[in-house]
Amino acid sequence: MKTAITPTRAEDFSQWYQNLIVAADLAESAPVRGCMTIKPYGWAIWELMRDEMDKRIKENGVQNANFPLLIPIDYFNREAEHVAGFAKEAAVVTHYRLKKIDGKLQPDPDAELTEPYVIRPTSETIIGEAMSRWVKSYRDLPMKLNQWVNVMRWEMRPRMFLRTSEFNWQEGHNVFATHDEANADARKMHKMYGEYMRNVLSIPCIMGEKTPEERFAGADHTYTVEQIMQDGKALQAGTSHDLGQHFAKSFGIQFLGTSGKLEHAWTTSWGTSTRMMGGLFMTHSDDDGLVLPPAVAPYQVVIIPITRDETADDLNAYGHALATRLRGAGVRVLVDDSDMRSPDKMWKWIKRGVPLRVEVGSREMETDAITVTRRDIGKDSKKTISSAEFVAHVNDMLRQVQYDMLAAAQKRNESMIHNVNDLAELDAALESGKIGFFRIKYDLTTNDKFDAMMEKYKISRRCLDDNDPSYVFVAKSY
Amino acid sequence: MKTAITPTRAEDFSQWYQNLIVAADLAESAPVRGCMTIKPYGWAIWELMRDEMDKRIKENGVQNANFPLLIPIDYFNREAEHVAGFAKEAAVVTHYRLKKIDGKLQPDPDAELTEPYVIRPTSETIIGEAMSRWVKSYRDLPMKLNQWVNVMRWEMRPRMFLRTSEFNWQEGHNVFATHDEANADARKMHKMYGEYMRNVLSIPCIMGEKTPEERFAGADHTYTVEQIMQDGKALQAGTSHDLGQHFAKSFGIQFLGTSGKLEHAWTTSWGTSTRMMGGLFMTHSDDDGLVLPPAVAPYQVVIIPITRDETADDLNAYGHALATRLRGAGVRVLVDDSDMRSPDKMWKWIKRGVPLRVEVGSREMETDAITVTRRDIGKDSKKTISSAEFVAHVNDMLRQVQYDMLAAAQKRNESMIHNVNDLAELDAALESGKIGFFRIKYDLTTNDKFDAMMEKYKISRRCLDDNDPSYVFVAKSY
Repeated sequence: MKTAITPTRAEDFSQWYQNLIVAADLAESAPVRGCMTIKPYGWAIWELMRDEMDKRIKENGVQNANFPLLIPIDYFNREAEHVAGFAKEAAVVTHYRLKKIDGKLQPDPDAELTEPYVIRPTSETIIGEAMSRWVKSYRDLPMKLNQWVNVMRWEMRPRMFLRTSEFNWQEGHNVFATHDEANADARKMHKMYGEYMRNVLSIPCIMGEKTPEERFAGADHTYTVEQIMQDGKALQAGTSHDLGQHFAKSFGIQFLGTSGKLEHAWTTSWGTSTRMMGGLFMTHSDDDGLVLPPAVAPYQVVIIPITRDETADDLNAYGHALATRLRGAGVRVLVDDSDMRSPDKMWKWIKRGVPLRVEVGSREMETDAITVTRRDIGKDSKKTISSAEFVAHVNDMLRQVQYDMLAAAQKRNESMIHNVNDLAELDAALESGKIGFFRIKYDLTTNDKFDAMMEKYKISRRCLDDNDPSYVFVAKSY
Repeated sequence: MKTAITPTRAEDFSQWYQNLIVAADLAESAPVRGCMTIKPYGWAIWELMRDEMDKRIKENGVQNANFPLLIPIDYFNREAEHVAGFAKEAAVVTHYRLKKIDGKLQPDPDAELTEPYVIRPTSETIIGEAMSRWVKSYRDLPMKLNQWVNVMRWEMRPRMFLRTSEFNWQEGHNVFATHDEANADARKMHKMYGEYMRNVLSIPCIMGEKTPEERFAGADHTYTVEQIMQDGKALQAGTSHDLGQHFAKSFGIQFLGTSGKLEHAWTTSWGTSTRMMGGLFMTHSDDDGLVLPPAVAPYQVVIIPITRDETADDLNAYGHALATRLRGAGVRVLVDDSDMRSPDKMWKWIKRGVPLRVEVGSREMETDAITVTRRDIGKDSKKTISSAEFVAHVNDMLRQVQYDMLAAAQKRNESMIHNVNDLAELDAALESGKIGFFRIKYDLTTNDKFDAMMEKYKISRRCLDDNDPSYVFVAKSY
């Protein structure tokens, strides 16, 4: 059977993903090393994802603010593990003026900065400096801040949405009076991410703590949200860090405690990014293109009038009247009354993953009916019902799609998690081409033999099992 | 009389403005040359401003997208006027890695970029390049795109919100098949800005075209929205540019016309930024602090329980019950049940400009009443009414504040616009210390004598008079 995307997932998952992004008109590579341009349809998805996340962030008592893009090189340097983690991918601003020299526009040698700046790869340092001035007493705590910004980590092997030099994200930075509170909050934001992935993106996640080898540069504990893609690879979709007193000590975040003594605070940071979009696309899409959960679909319903010339005006009007009723029910809807051929319109919206596709032809119009097809199921779900019934039940149908997509992803996840008893079993499974997450005793993965396997199979420790942290999940990853 | 802000506006407007920003906890200077950190209360105002603007942008058929932060130096160079306008304030990225050399973290000499990048000062060039690929035929036009991003123009004389090296803005970029359509759209977005300033920010603006001397670098026509501050100075709060075919030719944005011939398109760009916040603060605020129009007030109502120890719990509960009813009426409300002294709470929210301040004491609670004071009027508006009446009329009251603030600003504007017949009259008016906008024949301002006056009085041509473009408005400016 011919599919809208070639190659198919089974034929070449990686190339399928690249072609999916083109077919759904989501994004393209930019003429800047490792960067991408997110096109309107992709950005509309991100705006919905962002707004749902922002709502949850605010419900957690966090306030948004905005810190500078550039970070003085010296700040970056104050926390040893942090700088070691990010120095190798830092974009550095060294000049503040251009000049034409020998007919060529160049950095003006007379405008070189004495102290260069780094484009933020993350903002623990510059926010730490601000908090050292903003936090004075225990009354100021907890202080919970977040920003939605772009960051930059120079990327040598870029991949659309998954790894790009510039990306958009939210980074939360909280400060507490005690380690217990900080750790509990890092776990709370971690749980919030898990809930968001399930309920908004219909993605069930493996939730757990990173092993010491995989922690964030400068953290005591890193909690991660790991997703399993259809090819069995892991995608780290969000992390929440208990930073201990590392940044509080490096930046002097101190508060006057109830006892009247000056104490160092405890900080956390937590982030999710446009990378989640890659996870969303790779989790649900199929060989005909994108499949979007209704919660983040720019159009939840698309109405396609199946017109012949003599009926076009009437059918378009019928479609627009239906759209008005659906909007009244709170649904995001588009009527495609463009002059494309009807089959082309259908394929356009299949590729873009609109959850419910509604066709209206002369037969439907005569009986005040509609024909609806679910994107996640396809033609087996196609049915003709009265427009009144559709309007009355459209929100139920959308909820059902949202839920069924989660259930399908959950079922696939379960088939992709494998217990292995020792490294020999793991080796055999990987050698035989088995895909997914392998659950193994953590202490088995802290030796030279496992290091060699990581190298050989490109696997890594994803996270400890929350139910029994003596086990770790191991997988290939994006 | 003692005011919350010293010096007062009359004593030292410039210092008053700086102190206002501190008193209302809006922002602070960042440890990055010319940059600022926008604090939570300031950012909450911006989010409301942004959402109102974004709604209007989408209603105009514009789609949001996201283009890269960095621009290849060569792109920047392709439009001659454009590069001349921005080269002197460009932040340049020259390296992609840091390295410790002689114990000091520095740009790694082995990671120097062959072609440096400029942090976008605006995105006509990189968006032009994308459009040259995205626009193929007349069917693709008009194409209307916008992005909400940070940009950077190295600033030697920074001033909070008004001129900062990094700032946040929206930049719209539209493409059309004909010059007429492009020009009409540039004017339409200009009008949209004017409507937004009036209805959302309660600021009446002088709307007109920039003279050729003041145009955007690379535009045929620039339409500007000029605001008159309380000190009589002009603030350019938004611009819309008819770019002719400058960028279409530099970047090859061509389309197959209805006639079957390849033609260059016509482009526009239009932008507003966090600078508007400076205009908002300087237009409405007084010697006691910020005064916010309800449309962009993070809290439209603040409820302050005037507690004595024995009544605190009851009064706080009374305040929260009232807040719930107000939220039901769609109002953004805060109950300040912190343990600050009541007068300190009152001054805190006066300085932060909350439109309606509600006090509830034992007397109010006993009679199910509230005492409300309008921030824009002060104690003359203070009245005690039943809580039921307040809840029933709160939206009317907020609309009245919104309208009265516009009317007050309009009245002040009118007193600050002066007709002058010749340069001698202008000279005399400025010499005598008269403040505001001076309306004068445009041809009188295109000679050496006027150039000398611009230098002497730090004035500039703000825009032509839309009603009679042979006249120009001249003023000092931010």
